Amino acid sequence: MSEHIAEPQEIEVDPYALADTLVAAVRLAVAAGDRTRLAELLDPLHAADVADLLEQVDSGQRREILLLGVGHIDGDVLSELDESIREDVIEFLPDEHISEAVRDLETDDVVDLVEDLEEPQQAAILDALADADRVAVEQALSYPETSAGRLMQREVVVAPEHWSVGETIDYLRNHKKELPEQFYHIILVDPKMRPVGYVTLGKMLATSRKVPMAEVLEDSFRPIPVTQDESEVAYAFNQYHLISAPVVDEDGRLVGVITIDDAMAVLDEEHEEDILRLAGVGEGSLSDRVIETTKRRFPWLFVNLITAILASLVIAQFEATIAQFVALAVLMPIVASMGGNAGTQSLTVAVRSIATKDLTASNMWRVVRREALVGLVNGMIFAVVMGIVGVVWFGTPMLGVVIGVAMVVNLVVAGLAGTLVPLILEKLNVDPALASGAFVTTITDVVGFFVFLALAAAVLL
Amino acid sequence: MSEHIAEPQEIEVDPYALADTLVAAVRLAVAAGDRTRLAELLDPLHAADVADLLEQVDSGQRREILLLGVGHIDGDVLSELDESIREDVIEFLPDEHISEAVRDLETDDVVDLVEDLEEPQQAAILDALADADRVAVEQALSYPETSAGRLMQREVVVAPEHWSVGETIDYLRNHKKELPEQFYHIILVDPKMRPVGYVTLGKMLATSRKVPMAEVLEDSFRPIPVTQDESEVAYAFNQYHLISAPVVDEDGRLVGVITIDDAMAVLDEEHEEDILRLAGVGEGSLSDRVIETTKRRFPWLFVNLITAILASLVIAQFEATIAQFVALAVLMPIVASMGGNAGTQSLTVAVRSIATKDLTASNMWRVVRREALVGLVNGMIFAVVMGIVGVVWFGTPMLGVVIGVAMVVNLVVAGLAGTLVPLILEKLNVDPALASGAFVTTITDVVGFFVFLALAAAVLL
Repeated sequence: MSEHIAEPQEIEVDPYALADTLVAAVRLAVAAGDRTRLAELLDPLHAADVADLLEQVDSGQRREILLLGVGHIDGDVLSELDESIREDVIEFLPDEHISEAVRDLETDDVVDLVEDLEEPQQAAILDALADADRVAVEQALSYPETSAGRLMQREVVVAPEHWSVGETIDYLRNHKKELPEQFYHIILVDPKMRPVGYVTLGKMLATSRKVPMAEVLEDSFRPIPVTQDESEVAYAFNQYHLISAPVVDEDGRLVGVITIDDAMAVLDEEHEEDILRLAGVGEGSLSDRVIETTKRRFPWLFVNLITAILASLVIAQFEATIAQFVALAVLMPIVASMGGNAGTQSLTVAVRSIATKDLTASNMWRVVRREALVGLVNGMIFAVVMGIVGVVWFGTPMLGVVIGVAMVVNLVVAGLAGTLVPLILEKLNVDPALASGAFVTTITDVVGFFVFLALAAAVLL
Repeated sequence: MSEHIAEPQEIEVDPYALADTLVAAVRLAVAAGDRTRLAELLDPLHAADVADLLEQVDSGQRREILLLGVGHIDGDVLSELDESIREDVIEFLPDEHISEAVRDLETDDVVDLVEDLEEPQQAAILDALADADRVAVEQALSYPETSAGRLMQREVVVAPEHWSVGETIDYLRNHKKELPEQFYHIILVDPKMRPVGYVTLGKMLATSRKVPMAEVLEDSFRPIPVTQDESEVAYAFNQYHLISAPVVDEDGRLVGVITIDDAMAVLDEEHEEDILRLAGVGEGSLSDRVIETTKRRFPWLFVNLITAILASLVIAQFEATIAQFVALAVLMPIVASMGGNAGTQSLTVAVRSIATKDLTASNMWRVVRREALVGLVNGMIFAVVMGIVGVVWFGTPMLGVVIGVAMVVNLVVAGLAGTLVPLILEKLNVDPALASGAFVTTITDVVGFFVFLALAAAVLL
C-alpha cells in the first residue's frame, strides 16, 4: 500500500503533528536496524510524541521500535500511551525494564498506568515499586474508578494555619527533596489536617516574610470529596477556573490534591467519550485490531437494525397503498430522513446542555417548547418546498399536501423527542449520549413513515 | 407551564449544578421585588454561577434580575456570560455600570468580552478603560481572531537571565502591585526580551537565594508564536502538560503569556464546536431565540433535503420494479439506514482522530483498510441476519440474498467513505466536522438504495 509523504507547507499549518517525514525516517532506521539513527530521531521528542509515534505505526513496526529503542521507552512514554496498545507494549518489554521505568513516576501516574492492566501485569508493576509508593498506589486503587481519589496526587505541600510566609519558605527550602515536581499552592491545614484555605506561590513570593500565611489566602477555595466523580471534578475546574484543589476524606481531612492539568485531561476524555457515544462508537482507538473495533461497533448497528425493522413494519402496513401509488415509496425516505436529522440536532444540543448543566429541571419546559417551535417553523418551510417538489415531480397536488403535512408533524416530533428523550434518560441514570440516538431515530422513522403513508392512504386512494 | 422542583438526592449527585430550589427562590425574590432577599441569594455565588442563572431564566425574568440586582453583575459575571445573551445584558445595563465593571478586569478578559460585541458597544467599553489598558486591549484586538495573541495576557513576570533566585524574589516583593493575579512561572529573557527559559515558582521557593535562576530552568519550554491558532495552543497544552507558555512575536520577542486555564477553556469550546458541527448544528446556545435557532439549523436540514432527494431520484429509477414487488419498498430503508449508521461511526472516529492528530498521512491507508474490513465483517454478519429475516418475512429466498449482498456492499462503502471523506475535506481545508456528515450520508443512501434495487431488478424479476 503506497505511503503518502506530506508537503512541507502541511507541516507548517499543523505545528504539533508528528511530521510524516519523521515517521518515515523512524521506519527507515528501524528497517536498517540503525540504533544510533533511531536514538537521534527519538531523543528530541517529548514523551507524548514518542507515544503518538508508537500508536501510528502498525504492530509489527511497533515491536521493532521497542526492540531497537527500548531505552527511549521510559515511564513517561508508558503513561502517555493509549490504553489499547499500552498492554501490548508492557507485555513485550522485559520486566526489569518496566520496573525501572515505573519507579521514576509520581504515584498518580503509576495509578493511571496500572488501573486498566490485567491482574498479573498490575501485580508485577506494584512489586517493583518502593514500599511507600506501593502503599500509596494501592490506597489510590481502593477508591472507586473515575473518582477524585484515583485522580489526585498524594504528595501535598501543606503548612499549619498559623505559620508566616517566612516560616513556610524556610520549610520548603529544608524539604526540597520531598516536594512534588509541580505545585501551585500551599494548603493551610488545622491541627486535624483539615484544609482551611490556600495561598498561591505567586502571592507568597511577593509578600514579606513576617506576614502570616492566613492573611494572603485565596478566596476561591473548593475542597473536593475523595469519592466525587472525575467528570464533576473537571467541571468544577473549568467552571470556577481552579488551578489546584485539595481533596478531602469524609471527615474533611486532606488526603491529596488535584491539579488543573489532570482536570484538563479528564475534560478531554469526557468530551471524546461523548462524541463517540453520540455516534454509536464505544471507546477504543485507531490502534485497535479489526476484530475489537468490529465487536465494539456491532451492538449499536444491531440496535439500529431493530429500529430499522420497526420502521419497515410500519411501511409493511401500507403495502397495498404503495402498490397502487409507487411515488410514495420514492418520497417516503425524505420525510424520515429529515425527521432523523432534525431529531439529531435537537438531541445533540440537549445532550451537551445536560453535560454542561445548562439544561436543568428549572428550564426544561421552556427548552422543550422552543425545540418544538423550531421544528414547527423549519417544518413549515420544508413543507412548502417539498409540497412544490411533490407536485412538480409527480403532478399530483394532493401528494404535495401529504408530504408537506407529514414533514411538519415529523419535525415537531423530532424537536420534542430530541429534547425529552435525553432528559428522561438522564433522569433514569442512563447516559443520554449513549442511548438517545437510537430512541429518537426510531421515533422519527416510525412517525415519519406512518404519518406520510397513513395520510396518503386516506387522501390519495 | 408547570415547574419541576428537584428532590434533595438529585442535588447531591450533581454537586455543581445550580439547585432548582435556588433558581425558584431567585424567581420568587424578583417577583416580590425583594432586593435584600435577592442579594442574600446571589452573594454566595461564584460569578460563573450567577452567569449560569441569568442564562437559565427567560429574557423577561433576566431583565427583572438585572434591574433588582444590578450590583451583582460585575465584570466577572459579564465575562462568564454566554455570548448570545451577553450583548443583551450589556445593552440593558446603564453605561456607567458597564464601564465600572470592565475596569476591574484583566486585559485578556476585556478582550474576550469585547471581541464579539458590535462596534458601538465595543467602543463604549474601550472608552471606559484606563489609557494603558485600552492600548493593550486594542493591540490584542489587532491580532487575528482565535489567535494566541487574542488569548494571551500581556501582564508577564520576567527576569533577566543572569539574576539569582534572591534578586528575583526581591524584585517581586518590590513590584507587588504590578504583578498579575495568577502566575506560575518566571520567564527568563535575554537583553532583547527574547525568552530563554522559565522557572516554576515552586522550584524558586525551594531554592536558596544565591542560586542563579538559570540553574533551575524547566526542561519543557515551548514558546508559542503570537499568530498561532488557539486550537493548536490548546492541543500543545494538553499534549505537553504545559501550565503556562510564553508568547513571542515574529522576532522571537516576548509579548505575553498563556496560562493553562485559558487553554482549558479553548479546548472545551473546540470540543463543543466539534460535537455540534458533527450533528449539523451551528454555534449558539439554549438562550437563543427560536428564530435564531431555526435559522442556524435550517442550512443543514436543507443540505439534507438535497441529499434525500438525490436518494429518491435513485429510487425513482426503479419504480417499475417496486410496483411489481412492494416488499422492496418495505426493506430498502433498512439497507440505507444501516449504511448511514456505519458511515457515521467511521466518520466520527476519523474526525476525532484528525483533531487529535492521530490520523495522519503516515497511517491513513492502514486506517482506511481497517475501516473497510470492519465494514466487511459487520456487513457479513448483518447480511446473514437480514437474509434470514427477508426469507422468513417474505418467503422469497432470493430477496434474502439481495438484501444480504446490498448490506455487505453498503457497510464496506460506509467504512471507506466515512474515513476518506473527512481526510479529503481536511486536505481541502474544509472543517471535516462540519461537512463530512452530508457527504457520507449521501454516499451510503445512494449506494444502499441503488445496490439493493438494481440487484433486485436483476435477480427477482
